[in-house]
Amino acid sequence: MFESAEIGHVVDKDTYDAEVPALREALLEAQYELHQQSRFPVIVLINGIEGAGKGETVKLLNEWMDPRLIEVRTFDQQTDEELARPPAWRYWRMLPAKGRMGIFFGNWYSQMLQGRVHGQIKDPRLDQAINGAERLEKMLCDEGALIFKFWFHLSKKQMKARLKGLKDDPLHSWRISPLDWQQSQTYDKFVKYGERVLRRTSRDYAPWHVIEGADSYYRSLTVGRILLDGMRQALHRSRIKAERVNVAPLPPLDDQVTLLDSLDMTLRLDKADYEEQLITEQARFSGLLRDKRMRRHALVAVFEGNDAAGKGGAIRRVAAALDPRQYSIVPIAAPTEEERAHPYMWRFWRHIPARGKFTVFDRSWYGRVLVERVEGFCSKADWLRAYSEINDFEEQIADAGVVVVKFWLAIDKETQLERFQEREEIPFKRFKITEDDWRNRDKWDDYRAAVCDMVDRTSTEISPWTLIEANDKRWARVKVLRTLNEALEEAFERSAKQARKAKKGK
Amino acid sequence: MFESAEIGHVVDKDTYDAEVPALREALLEAQYELHQQSRFPVIVLINGIEGAGKGETVKLLNEWMDPRLIEVRTFDQQTDEELARPPAWRYWRMLPAKGRMGIFFGNWYSQMLQGRVHGQIKDPRLDQAINGAERLEKMLCDEGALIFKFWFHLSKKQMKARLKGLKDDPLHSWRISPLDWQQSQTYDKFVKYGERVLRRTSRDYAPWHVIEGADSYYRSLTVGRILLDGMRQALHRSRIKAERVNVAPLPPLDDQVTLLDSLDMTLRLDKADYEEQLITEQARFSGLLRDKRMRRHALVAVFEGNDAAGKGGAIRRVAAALDPRQYSIVPIAAPTEEERAHPYMWRFWRHIPARGKFTVFDRSWYGRVLVERVEGFCSKADWLRAYSEINDFEEQIADAGVVVVKFWLAIDKETQLERFQEREEIPFKRFKITEDDWRNRDKWDDYRAAVCDMVDRTSTEISPWTLIEANDKRWARVKVLRTLNEALEEAFERSAKQARKAKKGK
Repeated sequence: MFESAEIGHVVDKDTYDAEVPALREALLEAQYELHQQSRFPVIVLINGIEGAGKGETVKLLNEWMDPRLIEVRTFDQQTDEELARPPAWRYWRMLPAKGRMGIFFGNWYSQMLQGRVHGQIKDPRLDQAINGAERLEKMLCDEGALIFKFWFHLSKKQMKARLKGLKDDPLHSWRISPLDWQQSQTYDKFVKYGERVLRRTSRDYAPWHVIEGADSYYRSLTVGRILLDGMRQALHRSRIKAERVNVAPLPPLDDQVTLLDSLDMTLRLDKADYEEQLITEQARFSGLLRDKRMRRHALVAVFEGNDAAGKGGAIRRVAAALDPRQYSIVPIAAPTEEERAHPYMWRFWRHIPARGKFTVFDRSWYGRVLVERVEGFCSKADWLRAYSEINDFEEQIADAGVVVVKFWLAIDKETQLERFQEREEIPFKRFKITEDDWRNRDKWDDYRAAVCDMVDRTSTEISPWTLIEANDKRWARVKVLRTLNEALEEAFERSAKQARKAKKGK
Repeated sequence: MFESAEIGHVVDKDTYDAEVPALREALLEAQYELHQQSRFPVIVLINGIEGAGKGETVKLLNEWMDPRLIEVRTFDQQTDEELARPPAWRYWRMLPAKGRMGIFFGNWYSQMLQGRVHGQIKDPRLDQAINGAERLEKMLCDEGALIFKFWFHLSKKQMKARLKGLKDDPLHSWRISPLDWQQSQTYDKFVKYGERVLRRTSRDYAPWHVIEGADSYYRSLTVGRILLDGMRQALHRSRIKAERVNVAPLPPLDDQVTLLDSLDMTLRLDKADYEEQLITEQARFSGLLRDKRMRRHALVAVFEGNDAAGKGGAIRRVAAALDPRQYSIVPIAAPTEEERAHPYMWRFWRHIPARGKFTVFDRSWYGRVLVERVEGFCSKADWLRAYSEINDFEEQIADAGVVVVKFWLAIDKETQLERFQEREEIPFKRFKITEDDWRNRDKWDDYRAAVCDMVDRTSTEISPWTLIEANDKRWARVKVLRTLNEALEEAFERSAKQARKAKKGK
């Protein structure tokens, strides 16, 4: 993998000086074109050997191009706000918007490599991290991002020669950083695991470019040309998003019987039972959220459902159990400008709760496979790949201790009609009914199919869907609360088991 | 101030039960109307005595209204991201958007009161904090925000009775919090300083409402009614923003000689001097930013100037001196949807650097008194009050150690014409010239007047304007760098002096 970056590539000063002016101009032009189109972001990952020119290259790119359109991001120490959330959160919050370039100096690769080289993680965890990186990049590319991955390389001999040269030169010996010395010890390991990482994450949509770092003229010209070619190609492509469909749609069911049909829509609670059970489940919920085991977890509840199925009412009964400082409710509507300038999942990552906290999503990331699918707001390729992106997302946050509970509140068509009519009649409910609701109702069967697909493809062990029979609001509210309670208790129990196991293992 | 909240207001259960349903309905309706209009945000500040029902009221409001449109914010421990920035940053980042309600449970008042009661600050600092709060609220109201300030009160007798009641009741004694005990010691001080704060910050645009907290029916009904009345009035007002002009415009100058006329536009550097001085100032700048004294400061540089005055080129020469990880450049263009949903200064507060960092604003908060004034994008009242809002803002960040350096790059009309023509001719510069630039040029004199007003009103000791003679780009770039260096050196010197003084004082 690194052989061709150890053969001593050199560019002489004359060639360099002759080539740079035109290259700079072309890079600037590509950059302004990128900004003017604002169709996609450019993400540049900088990795490799210390002393191979990573920092110098980043500096040079900022000089060659317009630094006002570049964001250089470093990821050293995590802040406490980052530590309280799933690991990927820090990268998501730093993603550049469409039309801009983000240079990630230090990124998911540096994190996994440092971890493996210093023995904090073993191969299986490394492979998991590799897999996570692949999925993240695949998703970013599917959303239109242009990704460049540069590995700056030095052979062991080159590295040693460089260190020796610096050390012997009193004027430059201060340029040897602690990282340099550390790496001279761990070079072999670093290259070995680097090779594994590069091999497994070099993909057609985001290949690695290994750059021999010893000669700065060669290095700079090569990086500049790769960026220029890649940007030009992407800028001239008529449409960034691939229309390839990676997942075939589910075949229609032969018997036309869906999961939704299997619900017993007559389930109900009378008033006395409701009041008793509601208060019991609310007290239980309140206790669980104040439980000290909650400090290691966070809770995310997703509310989806037919229009007028009673999401708002159910959410209010959940909230009523709690101190308002413990939760926040995020209503998901049409995305804002900033949200549209980022990948689809960005707007949800923003609201992932810190440990100990609870976030309610009133509608959610499932919008893409529900309303966006049915109304044609995104392409078929987009919503088909969304299923796996969503599963990846939920797995990532679950791995970090977030308990994810998802509700589909189902009512039948007659009940919906009654509620719509009631909303139109009662003054303070008139805000809750719009033309859109009636239009959606006409697409009842399309939504039904979308819901069944969604549940089939995204009800996972990690975060199963709970279908709520919601013709009776009382039944629905109690079932929602009970489900939340059971999910938290299970999660607490599971972590306790793991803790015991870990203790035994020692 | 608190007398009328110590007379034992009571509402009986029947009255309460009879009134609540209509009140809730009306509150919900107002809330939906607020959301539908999305013209202004509602900010509710919750302060007062422990045990007077603050928490209960917040919880009740979330039950009465739709919690999906409410954000409850608490401000306890500062996170390390908050600690690295000016104190007000944490409040700015939590401001609710137009159409939503933010309940600030714990806020600037709690912070200043705790500090004073526990002796961390003395009266002069308290008065400064009071003054800061006043200015912040005035600005929020001028931007359209509706602010409610509730002080929940208990007389000393009521407080003692409550504590005794709880203590003697084995079922409820756990409800006494450490804060309760603490307060029973500091009640007199708390009320004394509370009185001072309320007296000085109760203004027509954001008055305090002192609520007697002993009787929960009385308390809840009163708060609900105040909110309802206030929201209704604001919703029916045809325009939220006051059109009162608080500052008279500057009179025209008799002799027509402005600051800009006093610049010597022939100043220039030849190539050799330029190269030598540029490299010297860049090295000096790089050294200052790596200086360990920089850890106690942050640097903000504002670049404003005529179109084609060379802002971009100057910024690139500044950036070229540094490691790209040290700075970020924020180009200010038309505000995004989210930015428009917040007060004008919100979009700048977002980008305030953490300690040790450097942010370049390519155009800035001065847009309001330049382009927005000249093009009529905001009302006269808006840009007239902007001068003092800007001075407040710069004072706040300067107080937190941020060094603010502001440049106006001035060229004359002929030079601009030459540069415009050059831009139209050179292919990779064609992105830099638009119809807008030509249109702005037609308003040369209007912009000139706006610039002179701006400099007169916002060139303060804390953050003076530096006018840069920019007909010669070389001269301009060197002067920019030199000014930055001098500002940093002065700031370092000033903090060293203060440190010596503080040491002596001990």
